[in-house]
Amino acid sequence: MKPNSKLTLIGFVAVELAFIATVALAQDQLSSWNGGPTKQTIVDFVARVTKEGSPDFVPVPERIATFDNDGTLWAEQPMYFQFFFALHRVKALAPQHPEWKTKEPFASLLKGNVKGVLKEGERAMLEIVMATHAGMTTEEFEKIVKDWVASAKHPKTKRPYTEMVYQPMLELLAYLRANGFKTFIVSGGGVEFMRPWTEKVYGISPEQVIGSSVKTKFEMRDGKPVLVRLPEINFIDDKAGKPVGIHQHIGRRPIAAFGNSEGDREMLEWTQAAGGARLMMLVHHDDAVREFAYGTESKIGTFSDALMTEAKKNGWTVISMKNDWKVVFPFEGK
Amino acid sequence: MKPNSKLTLIGFVAVELAFIATVALAQDQLSSWNGGPTKQTIVDFVARVTKEGSPDFVPVPERIATFDNDGTLWAEQPMYFQFFFALHRVKALAPQHPEWKTKEPFASLLKGNVKGVLKEGERAMLEIVMATHAGMTTEEFEKIVKDWVASAKHPKTKRPYTEMVYQPMLELLAYLRANGFKTFIVSGGGVEFMRPWTEKVYGISPEQVIGSSVKTKFEMRDGKPVLVRLPEINFIDDKAGKPVGIHQHIGRRPIAAFGNSEGDREMLEWTQAAGGARLMMLVHHDDAVREFAYGTESKIGTFSDALMTEAKKNGWTVISMKNDWKVVFPFEGK
Repeated sequence: MKPNSKLTLIGFVAVELAFIATVALAQDQLSSWNGGPTKQTIVDFVARVTKEGSPDFVPVPERIATFDNDGTLWAEQPMYFQFFFALHRVKALAPQHPEWKTKEPFASLLKGNVKGVLKEGERAMLEIVMATHAGMTTEEFEKIVKDWVASAKHPKTKRPYTEMVYQPMLELLAYLRANGFKTFIVSGGGVEFMRPWTEKVYGISPEQVIGSSVKTKFEMRDGKPVLVRLPEINFIDDKAGKPVGIHQHIGRRPIAAFGNSEGDREMLEWTQAAGGARLMMLVHHDDAVREFAYGTESKIGTFSDALMTEAKKNGWTVISMKNDWKVVFPFEGK
Repeated sequence: MKPNSKLTLIGFVAVELAFIATVALAQDQLSSWNGGPTKQTIVDFVARVTKEGSPDFVPVPERIATFDNDGTLWAEQPMYFQFFFALHRVKALAPQHPEWKTKEPFASLLKGNVKGVLKEGERAMLEIVMATHAGMTTEEFEKIVKDWVASAKHPKTKRPYTEMVYQPMLELLAYLRANGFKTFIVSGGGVEFMRPWTEKVYGISPEQVIGSSVKTKFEMRDGKPVLVRLPEINFIDDKAGKPVGIHQHIGRRPIAAFGNSEGDREMLEWTQAAGGARLMMLVHHDDAVREFAYGTESKIGTFSDALMTEAKKNGWTVISMKNDWKVVFPFEGK
């Protein structure tokens, strides 16, 4: 056998073995999803786009799937987890900021009046995030996030926040990747707040995380280059910002997109508009027993009647947590 | 055999076969590099970081390599190829802009006085790029770039610009990828000018291209979502902007970085500063016969004496096109 044909044979055998392994592993991959039209929609879509020769076939490099994070991959109640982190930072930084004792919104927060601050809306939250997420190097910030994530507990379940992830969505991520998809997070949350733990928790590497960001500045400190985080918004990756962020970062359109709220509307519209076989899904939080039931009225994760109407009109699939998910969190029943 | 152990065995055999294939293919992978210390530096570095159990071992997900484009992967003389594209656009758009007949720098360009405009420096060039690269949707722009790249020819060699790439660097990209590296472009050029052709020319997918960009805006046109390119700078991915762009996009540091000019200095500093086995290389354009000889005095691709001093001090490898490359362009000798 010539070296080339030996290599071809080796390559062929390796591909075949990989295929057998994938099929065997795939059998149980969506086991936390109840059978029914929602699960079937996922399986049918993946079958269509991966079947060579089919009119809906999509080559591997173009199999891009984007996932919102808060409320889609992990919980977002009673408030965005990044905001718990910001509150923790306000307390940690308060001794260096005596002026916060009388300056709003910090004064209210330090007195424990979180609800009052939340009512003031996005501007106040942004002010808190800017004050607590900037002024240090990117490496220092990464360490702060890692330490917090390793120790902080959710106020209701007393579990680490990184356990407040949805088991069916973890399975969906793995299932898509096993079928040649590249999975991205596209979140309104801070990109540097997510990257330190997404690889471990979701199997999503830092370069596949897209999020909001502050500006950073390259400078020399003691002869060593650092990137300093500035208290200045660089990009808000939410609503109409999501297609912009996807385009900036990925440079091609997703063929599947997953969200749960108004903030994801444009991402799903953008995904669908290219035509061809596309999968658009919205997680609906309708399970007050196992998670939370909210949507129409909620300031966090708003899912208005107008969004529901658009989803139905456009053929997007609404995932009912209550009916479609056998298990919500990985720790259930453990 | 239980199903699990069968899968483990299959996985093991597949990995072994993949390894054999990689070693066999690697033998000729750097054939356009002359033997000597430069080539040896590359091979030694790759051996160190890929050898499991070695103190310099780097896990696959962290094997990030970043490449400048202009002057590092493809030629940049007599001027940046994107600027030829901008000139082409000025001519194409002139009928819609009668005011350009008397407005500088457009008036000079339309009269063929390119050198005069280049002397005016970056501000004039930026004005031209803004005027010609904005105002259309991202899809329209992509088509314009693709059409230009398919038809335009380099003024000296009369070859398509996408053939003006360095054969040894194509081999280096492939060699690194065969050794588990993820290869990124980190260029001062426009990200949307590069993405339409980098996959075909370099094997680098759109999501692994980082570059300068204009702002884009999501809007509905005839009920269809589009992204419109605005005449407003979003990000300049050059000099101190390169580490910023790398951090924003990749979220981890490269372990190998390749450039050719002052614009790459901070990227190499940032790569080296994390410590561990790192590879920093600068292409030096010292081959007036096969390419161009320039550097110290050139406005394009400046390689000052100070940069050479820093390279020597920091142990960066300077690649001599003249001495280290057996072949410069893929079309040589054809």
